[in-house]
Amino acid sequence: MQQPGSIGQASSRPGPEPLRDPASLRRLLSPGSVAVIGVSAEPTRFGGRTVTNLVNFTGQVWGVNPKYAGQPLHGRPCLASLDEIPESPDCVLIALPREQMMPAVEACIAKKVGGIIAFASGYGETGLADRLAEEARLRDRCREAGLPLVGVNCLGIVDHVLKAGVTFMPEYIRMTAPAGGVAITSQSGALGYALMQAAERGYSVCHMTTAGNATDLDVCDLAAYQLSMPECRAVALAVEGLRDGRRLLLLGEAARRAGKPIVALKLGRGDAGAAAAASHTGSLAGSALAWSAAFKRAGMVEVEDFDALLETAALFAKAGKPKAPGVAIVTASGGAGIMAADHAEALGLDMPQPSAEARAVLEAAIPDFGAARNPCDLTAQAAGNPASFGKCVLAMMADPQYGVIVYPQVYSHQQTTPGRIQEIAELTERGGKPIIVAWIPEQLEAPGTIAADASPVVPLFRSMRRLMNAIRLWHQYHAGRDDDAVARPAGLDAALAALPPGPSVLTEAEAKTLFAKVGVPVVEERRAATAEAAAEAAAATGFPVVLKLDSPDIAHKTEVGGVKLNLGDAGAVRSAFAEITASAKYHAPAARIDGVLVQRMSQKGVELILGGRQDGQFGPMVLVGTGGVQAELWKDVVLDIAPVSPARAEAMLRGLKGFPLLDGFRGAAKADLAAVAAAVSAFSMLLAAAEGRIDEAEANPLIAGEWGCLAVDGLVKCAG
Amino acid sequence: MQQPGSIGQASSRPGPEPLRDPASLRRLLSPGSVAVIGVSAEPTRFGGRTVTNLVNFTGQVWGVNPKYAGQPLHGRPCLASLDEIPESPDCVLIALPREQMMPAVEACIAKKVGGIIAFASGYGETGLADRLAEEARLRDRCREAGLPLVGVNCLGIVDHVLKAGVTFMPEYIRMTAPAGGVAITSQSGALGYALMQAAERGYSVCHMTTAGNATDLDVCDLAAYQLSMPECRAVALAVEGLRDGRRLLLLGEAARRAGKPIVALKLGRGDAGAAAAASHTGSLAGSALAWSAAFKRAGMVEVEDFDALLETAALFAKAGKPKAPGVAIVTASGGAGIMAADHAEALGLDMPQPSAEARAVLEAAIPDFGAARNPCDLTAQAAGNPASFGKCVLAMMADPQYGVIVYPQVYSHQQTTPGRIQEIAELTERGGKPIIVAWIPEQLEAPGTIAADASPVVPLFRSMRRLMNAIRLWHQYHAGRDDDAVARPAGLDAALAALPPGPSVLTEAEAKTLFAKVGVPVVEERRAATAEAAAEAAAATGFPVVLKLDSPDIAHKTEVGGVKLNLGDAGAVRSAFAEITASAKYHAPAARIDGVLVQRMSQKGVELILGGRQDGQFGPMVLVGTGGVQAELWKDVVLDIAPVSPARAEAMLRGLKGFPLLDGFRGAAKADLAAVAAAVSAFSMLLAAAEGRIDEAEANPLIAGEWGCLAVDGLVKCAG
Repeated sequence: MQQPGSIGQASSRPGPEPLRDPASLRRLLSPGSVAVIGVSAEPTRFGGRTVTNLVNFTGQVWGVNPKYAGQPLHGRPCLASLDEIPESPDCVLIALPREQMMPAVEACIAKKVGGIIAFASGYGETGLADRLAEEARLRDRCREAGLPLVGVNCLGIVDHVLKAGVTFMPEYIRMTAPAGGVAITSQSGALGYALMQAAERGYSVCHMTTAGNATDLDVCDLAAYQLSMPECRAVALAVEGLRDGRRLLLLGEAARRAGKPIVALKLGRGDAGAAAAASHTGSLAGSALAWSAAFKRAGMVEVEDFDALLETAALFAKAGKPKAPGVAIVTASGGAGIMAADHAEALGLDMPQPSAEARAVLEAAIPDFGAARNPCDLTAQAAGNPASFGKCVLAMMADPQYGVIVYPQVYSHQQTTPGRIQEIAELTERGGKPIIVAWIPEQLEAPGTIAADASPVVPLFRSMRRLMNAIRLWHQYHAGRDDDAVARPAGLDAALAALPPGPSVLTEAEAKTLFAKVGVPVVEERRAATAEAAAEAAAATGFPVVLKLDSPDIAHKTEVGGVKLNLGDAGAVRSAFAEITASAKYHAPAARIDGVLVQRMSQKGVELILGGRQDGQFGPMVLVGTGGVQAELWKDVVLDIAPVSPARAEAMLRGLKGFPLLDGFRGAAKADLAAVAAAVSAFSMLLAAAEGRIDEAEANPLIAGEWGCLAVDGLVKCAG
Repeated sequence: MQQPGSIGQASSRPGPEPLRDPASLRRLLSPGSVAVIGVSAEPTRFGGRTVTNLVNFTGQVWGVNPKYAGQPLHGRPCLASLDEIPESPDCVLIALPREQMMPAVEACIAKKVGGIIAFASGYGETGLADRLAEEARLRDRCREAGLPLVGVNCLGIVDHVLKAGVTFMPEYIRMTAPAGGVAITSQSGALGYALMQAAERGYSVCHMTTAGNATDLDVCDLAAYQLSMPECRAVALAVEGLRDGRRLLLLGEAARRAGKPIVALKLGRGDAGAAAAASHTGSLAGSALAWSAAFKRAGMVEVEDFDALLETAALFAKAGKPKAPGVAIVTASGGAGIMAADHAEALGLDMPQPSAEARAVLEAAIPDFGAARNPCDLTAQAAGNPASFGKCVLAMMADPQYGVIVYPQVYSHQQTTPGRIQEIAELTERGGKPIIVAWIPEQLEAPGTIAADASPVVPLFRSMRRLMNAIRLWHQYHAGRDDDAVARPAGLDAALAALPPGPSVLTEAEAKTLFAKVGVPVVEERRAATAEAAAEAAAATGFPVVLKLDSPDIAHKTEVGGVKLNLGDAGAVRSAFAEITASAKYHAPAARIDGVLVQRMSQKGVELILGGRQDGQFGPMVLVGTGGVQAELWKDVVLDIAPVSPARAEAMLRGLKGFPLLDGFRGAAKADLAAVAAAVSAFSMLLAAAEGRIDEAEANPLIAGEWGCLAVDGLVKCAG
């Protein structure tokens, strides 16, 4: 992948802060010993709860509180100060309010502890300047001393392998599920805990962290540590925002190296904050879209729902790679089979019919009121017989069309369902393909769900919608990646040199000249100061032509009668020149009028929009969309982080709902996709290279046809 | 509402079979006594299970099986035959295989029982002709004898008020939730059971029925019975298909009369079955769309997810009517507040900021690291204090902007969360508005969920997405209904008389003549047999004009060079005539050529599609969509059952994503909406009145502008 922040040699902005080395976080996040500063005798207070949450932790635990010094507290020794602890604790939890933080931090530094977790709130999240400064001082002190800090305003961490519940959440002792392959990182402490509660119903987690204010370590550092754990097979990440969005790409790179997927949820998707974005492109490129583009670019799996986060992460942790695109549905209930097919079909998943070999096995096993096809309705009769159930499932797994079996468990029977899950685990191993359980019963926690959630190989979803969507994401994740080579356009330096030194808005002609320098084809145009010169320019351009008012003082040409289309001969051009200049003088008597631009009427084609803007989190982004006057209505746009290679640009175009318009829709000629992709890539290179100097740029419409593509209008807003 | 099947005096098709009178089903569905024919000593077999499921039923229960006659079985008397029972049982469950059904049915008829439930499978669902006939004989015999039948191939029924678990599903005894306001009707037995298992985790159900093959009673009859139960406050309905879809409208009418909502899920949404529909309109009007239109027309609340069915039904059963459109979010976690706002915003729900009065209360109670706004982050500190929690919630409830409070319960604490739910129930009563709990913890069954699910006033959702979507549906359901008066067009009888007697496809001119008769404006056109006549016709029509080949033998005019647009003078018309006729003769030497149609070039406007077809389930349907060449791409269509009133037609138009195009999009003039709605209504009236004679009709494009609307092309396929 292209290194974020190192786009060619073009970028002027410093790269993002590198991720913290996981090895440097091991003592803090997978501790061998824990000290709790501010422990109290009351088991429901933060410090007391943390010590009780460590009841099954095998390492050393010390309480620190002068009030209880010398006496055991919650079964652990309590000392007057950190200093009295005979060794240097790996992880120190400070359960003190903000006002008492700094002395405790200094004690940790003196003791050379492995790191600090801080619960205290009332820092930067208040929005108050002095609290922001206080938090910055805390960060600076910890960094200077080389002491990693989780928090402030967090809920702690859990290493479930070590049973280290270094958190004040109550009832960690209820989380009896065995440690498993999913690690959880949440920015919000409360949501982290809500997710971790899955371990109370059997779901297997290996590690959980909460970033809180991310004073020092943010979710990217924390998740990167989890990727380094041998137990971890997938990370479930819930993020609200980052100081520097490009760290997400660094985390994505770490995940790719580790070969472990990150399933991510963005909270705070609303566009309310982006409402101020004035221009057309800005309004389409809301923040949720930018985050989606970044997740995709980072190679992460984005879910849109809190509900889907853990289920999807478990699929990735358990299922391996798909061996074929086909989805087989095997069930004991016709209704559940229909439900599965509905959702699969709605998402465009492939549900081929079984091969002759598989069908023969099904037909021998299934009674006449069942269905020996896909979806396969075994009927309760055949499904209830373990021999015929296993035979049918193995026959479907042996069919090379299928990469996954979906098994809706229709109702939950306390006695028999866990055995069925055990059978499924065994069939998974034998058949070498995942069998995903769709849990249909409204009894949500049952011996059957516990068996599946705790199994290292049986993914379970409590929603058919989420299940099928997760299969789609699983297919996408394991599909080949785009080639990412970005060629530096020859004219890039010249284009950058031509950018104005200060804030300004380029004229249409200037914008198009800039685009042309980097290789975006623009409509040919000639300037003409008189009617006669316009007629000559038109003849040289070729009829029919368009005349547009050329004035540095008038931005909205149409509104002053400054545009005339489809002029077929020299006479029409002369009249149009007179009308345009007269109308402009009438509407804007003070404006300077340089004459007109003469453009050839554009060839027939599909109208696209090509745009870009500077995103607060991710830097320069590029956007393509189905364009023209209806662009705002259909909101059919795809974003990516600039720059994009031509291959990635083509993938963007293919991602448009309107892509068929470029692909021979209803017998029309196919557009020259390579030409459009090259233009998108070149445009994105300009945005990336000019980072910080172009606030916003737009070629709209960009007309695309079998003959290539052409930017017909242009706009560039420079920050200077 | 317009009575289905009684459309004006126009319809020739007989109306749907009326719903069964609920009073006639009371003995069967809310029985005072139950007999089980085919009971066995084995408690896991169907008959044995049913008797054990009746353990808490207070009425009389008899087993019938000559093998065990005279001895008690599962604690109930067992007799040799139905005849020996001293009274006439209300409900007789026949737990015998298909081969033994008929003698048992005859015994029931002789005994004048209240009705029959039959589990047996192997009937019509096999698709075998002799089994279909066998099922028809069974239906005919029961109807003739006036004995209602549930099944065959069903899973039984449950009256949870009476603890009458007349079903072979195991473990009814585990369903310990108190009886509540939701009744469940499912076509699929297995899915009905899966839903009913909610009663194992505390969810309150009053009644459950499964229709199976619906040999006699279908889901509409069963749900209508449940509506008549005083305990029932909402019905959750899962349906796959109906013999006559118009019964759904009868059920909707019954629900409206009862003032009880029906929350409905259609299974089998896939368009695979509709793939054969050849024409353009057909391909857009897939079956899921037709069902959605029917649910809407029936005044039902459609959910798209099995997962959403019970949660949404509980909201309707518990929440009453919204008093205001605003949604207030009150939470102890910033993260959960963001999550709630994300989903509310994505659905366009209104989240106003609190009034000054409410804000003052919040500010006094919430610490500086919280948020005294909407979403309101109380912080764990203020939320944990019952006094300040209650004060803040009541302040938001007293704000007249809000109709509902959403309270995300962030994590589940065994000891304290049930108390919080109790507080919420009390605040609901005091504040007089619903408080919906968004259950965030991944611990899915907990003392807190049990408390909410069993409460008659606290709705609970385990998904923020589903919660916000349900609020949207709740608002829609309680919004005012459209006026439904359908005026019979003056020319309707003439139009019907003009329909050809047998199957045929009308020419464009014939189709438009038919549309014009009922009042759909069509483009003016003249027929011309010679070039000179064409030029004269053009002059009379007004330039510019369009020429179209007029031949009864050529359907696809464009493909033989038969259309010439934008002809500006008589000379151009003469040349075009010559070119068209020559080209047609070249491409189709054998075709009859009558000359050309001369039409005025249509005025500027928005292209719509207006279509209709005969739906297998619901009869004639009308469709409007954003039209033109891109109609297929955006699939922006709205369907309804024909006929529609002009008000309903306008609501269809407003339901289009492309509606802004008609409503002054980007400064364009607004289209004459009343004219378009009148055309849609008139067109729908023609479809309805011609029921069974028009297979498919289409006016495409229908151009709409400020000047009115005009059908420019037309197609009608008649069944004869």
